[in-house]
Amino acid sequence: MTQPLDIAVVGATGSVGETLVQILEELAFPVATLHLLASMESAGSSVMFAGKTIKVREVDSFDFAQVKLAFFAASPAVSRSFANKAQQAGCTVIDLSGGLDDALAVVPEANADSIANLKLPARLASPGSAAVALAVALAPLKGLLDIERVQVMASLAVSAQGREAVNELARQTAELLNARPLEPRFFDRQVAFNLLAQVGAVDEQGHAGLERRLVSELRELLGQPELKISVTCIQVPVFFGDSFSVAVQSRKPVDLVAVNAALESADSVELVERDDYPTPVGDAVGQDVVYVGRVRHGVDDDQQLNLWLTTDNLRKGAALNAVQVAQLLIKHRL
Amino acid sequence: MTQPLDIAVVGATGSVGETLVQILEELAFPVATLHLLASMESAGSSVMFAGKTIKVREVDSFDFAQVKLAFFAASPAVSRSFANKAQQAGCTVIDLSGGLDDALAVVPEANADSIANLKLPARLASPGSAAVALAVALAPLKGLLDIERVQVMASLAVSAQGREAVNELARQTAELLNARPLEPRFFDRQVAFNLLAQVGAVDEQGHAGLERRLVSELRELLGQPELKISVTCIQVPVFFGDSFSVAVQSRKPVDLVAVNAALESADSVELVERDDYPTPVGDAVGQDVVYVGRVRHGVDDDQQLNLWLTTDNLRKGAALNAVQVAQLLIKHRL
Ligand SMILES: NC(=O)c1ccc[n+]([C@@H]2O[C@H](COP(=O)([O-])OP(=O)(O)OC[C@H]3O[C@@H](n4cnc5c(N)ncnc54)[C@H](OP(=O)(O)O)[C@@H]3O)[C@@H](O)[C@H]2O)c1
Ligand SMILES: NC(=O)c1ccc[n+]([C@@H]2O[C@H](COP(=O)([O-])OP(=O)(O)OC[C@H]3O[C@@H](n4cnc5c(N)ncnc54)[C@H](OP(=O)(O)O)[C@@H]3O)[C@@H](O)[C@H]2O)c1
Repeated sequence: MTQPLDIAVVGATGSVGETLVQILEELAFPVATLHLLASMESAGSSVMFAGKTIKVREVDSFDFAQVKLAFFAASPAVSRSFANKAQQAGCTVIDLSGGLDDALAVVPEANADSIANLKLPARLASPGSAAVALAVALAPLKGLLDIERVQVMASLAVSAQGREAVNELARQTAELLNARPLEPRFFDRQVAFNLLAQVGAVDEQGHAGLERRLVSELRELLGQPELKISVTCIQVPVFFGDSFSVAVQSRKPVDLVAVNAALESADSVELVERDDYPTPVGDAVGQDVVYVGRVRHGVDDDQQLNLWLTTDNLRKGAALNAVQVAQLLIKHRL
Repeated sequence: MTQPLDIAVVGATGSVGETLVQILEELAFPVATLHLLASMESAGSSVMFAGKTIKVREVDSFDFAQVKLAFFAASPAVSRSFANKAQQAGCTVIDLSGGLDDALAVVPEANADSIANLKLPARLASPGSAAVALAVALAPLKGLLDIERVQVMASLAVSAQGREAVNELARQTAELLNARPLEPRFFDRQVAFNLLAQVGAVDEQGHAGLERRLVSELRELLGQPELKISVTCIQVPVFFGDSFSVAVQSRKPVDLVAVNAALESADSVELVERDDYPTPVGDAVGQDVVYVGRVRHGVDDDQQLNLWLTTDNLRKGAALNAVQVAQLLIKHRL
């Protein structure tokens, strides 16, 4: 049997952190003591875990020597401030913020073997929700495709930007339905009933940080450092659930029967048959898999595979994947 | 000076038809008598045009010999029922429904020359809003790119499906904000705060009619019958304004300076500079151009050009383009 672990969750009061705590309970993760950490702002509040009330404390004064494993689900800046300290105190870090460039990105379905020879305490990352979804859907297909290029259009839910963004979509929608004038707050303009073609600032070449991050994470996860990947991330007026339109160009004809069979038998994929299609609301949200639908060739192009993916950005896209990485570590001796 | 024409608008009470009548007025189109036609349901209602009230009549009993030009903005079935009759009566047809397979699709910015030797009365089509937007944005770039493939992800506003769809998004949103149970009507499921990955039924190969139509129209408009185009059309919870994420693969490096210059000088394009981006609400809606933004190479791929387009689906995507086709006909002797 597994020895229960002392664990810390940094950012425990946020959307991802809260989901993470829920999932630790749902999966009966072997927790000895759970330390919940956040900023000064919510220190003192309490959270239920496994029937007990846990007080949230400030991360600044936490001694990471008390835990063997810490999830970082606050901001990238928080990860950069405390991850070194934690690791030096003997604690393995699983970062969800994207703030640690040198952390090993892991999606168990895609690159579980990457942790085989890891030196502990380690520095791991659960990649962005887009990279998780794509890795889960493409990993089972690697043997069937000779991938030349992947084209991704990511439609991100507002919850991908945290609690405040969720409140802002609700507020804007209510104002508009009541015909009241709109003053955007969290977003730089109206997001309700609109599409924002850019998420975050872009660099000299016009790519957003999120888009660059997806490219490098997906190359790492698929073990194809030179893979051509093009990405556009947009913000859509959806509360929960990220969706992805994906076109994979292969150097050989794509066998759709084999593709469907491989997706069908992948544990973390729920394949939706032709004539139906998965949506964030109603399918993905609250579920632990990546929904895959609209599996088809390109028009007049049997070397192209088109897919539509949708997944719960807070669960498989973030918290669930991070916990699954932790489960993998335990299997490997953490 | 141009001789004023007798004109009919079929579907004059719909979203597109109403916009069309407005645009005829805005552009001071040379109208002698304007006949407004619809189904039995709204026959008898009236519409304002150029300061006068016009009674809507039933299309079934209309004699098309009274007009020289008819816009068809009802359903594909209506176009198929009446277009032949109209043409035989000496009337040129401009179809907006997509119902006439043998009509010549025209977007003046892309293939104005295609009507040079047209025999009148003719059978023309204003293509779907996606084909219009793409043709407007890509036509000025044809000389700069050696296009190998075009990848399109179209995010369609609910108004692309007519008035009822607009009402349904408003109704669903209000129900959800008031925490009332949702029973979808027009759409087969919740569209508010959701993305529907498929618009209309799909064929054996998994492509929707709308997607096939875009491929064939765009090939025709760009004069590249073999062009590889892949399309995914989704329904987004936006009232007005269609948006398109476009990746063009060229066989040679793409010169972004030249691309920006060509877009900048295209009359029907409004180019949005880096660090800003165009959105349906706030930019495209109510305007007569195609907004183009996020102009950039692919990540590590200078043979790829990425663009984001957004346009008013009722104006340039439909009614305005149809009227511009009519203006072109007049210039050519209608
Ligand atoms: N949302 C997603 O879909 C998603 C997916 C993958 C990754 N991520 C990443 O996960 C992280 C959390 O996202 P979220 O959506 O949960 O955001 P959120 O709802 O805004 O929550 C932020 C959390 O971070 C804490 N925090 C903020 N500043 C802090 C500080 N200086 N010191 C300590 N704690 C601090 C907050 O605590 P207080 O209550 O004290 O403010 C809160 O617990 C982000 O880095 C995000 O990029 C999010
Ligand atoms: N909406 C867009 O963005 C867009 C863009 C490009 C093309 N289109 C195409 O344009 C057409 C109209 O679209 P819409 O959005 O305006 O739809 P809509 O708002 O639903 O209006 C439909 C119009 O067609 C009329 N109509 C329906 N059945 C008829 C019949 N049996 N006989 C005569 N008239 C009939 C309706 O008249 P009643 O008032 O009598 O019912 C109404 O005027 C469709 O074919 C659509 O695919 C739309």
